[in-house]
Amino acid sequence: MGFKAILRSIVEESGGGLGGVIMGYDGISIDEYVRESAGIDVLTMTVEYASVLKEIKRTVGVLKTGELEEVSIISGECSVIVRGISDDFFVALIMAADGNFGKGRYLLKRAAPGFREALQ
Amino acid sequence: MGFKAILRSIVEESGGGLGGVIMGYDGISIDEYVRESAGIDVLTMTVEYASVLKEIKRTVGVLKTGELEEVSIISGECSVIVRGISDDFFVALIMAADGNFGKGRYLLKRAAPGFREALQ
Repeated sequence: MGFKAILRSIVEESGGGLGGVIMGYDGISIDEYVRESAGIDVLTMTVEYASVLKEIKRTVGVLKTGELEEVSIISGECSVIVRGISDDFFVALIMAADGNFGKGRYLLKRAAPGFREALQ
Repeated sequence: MGFKAILRSIVEESGGGLGGVIMGYDGISIDEYVRESAGIDVLTMTVEYASVLKEIKRTVGVLKTGELEEVSIISGECSVIVRGISDDFFVALIMAADGNFGKGRYLLKRAAPGFREALQ
């Protein structure tokens, strides 16, 4: 299954998923799947967050509390769940505010090893 | 109940809580409670994250997806759960990696309105 198909299954199974992106911390996307009805510019959003994530990764490195595993940012209208795949890449799931946050986290965590392997 | 007592009850009830801090986005702490056995410099950690949180808050503002409600950052050795209280302040709970993340989120969410009211 290609990246887009995996992202699609995560977005559609998560309950409230709007889009999924595999991206470098430099803000360059490898692949993405966005629901037609998303109503949010998923890619712009992830690009904006990429530089923040890079900063979080740097801070976690300074604090020496292990590898960065997951970041989630919840705002009034949507949630973004991010999982680190490697030193260079992350996968992000964007969900509606009323989406199933716990299921989204679980699906990303389950998919991460497969992404990691494919990107090596 | 003062801030420290509320932070203490959150840290002790959460299961795996190491410390709790109420802080400004400028990195200046209002109050904190740290477990003696924490083994992590909770305050330094929160100060380091404060500037990242400020950046996240700014990004959420740019994206216009509503107010920033919650941020969580999970690394190999610990989790940090942050809840926005006002434009200037947040409350953070630092947990051990094997702590009860869901309960920590719930306790912070439940306590946030009380903090908000007290800081107005």
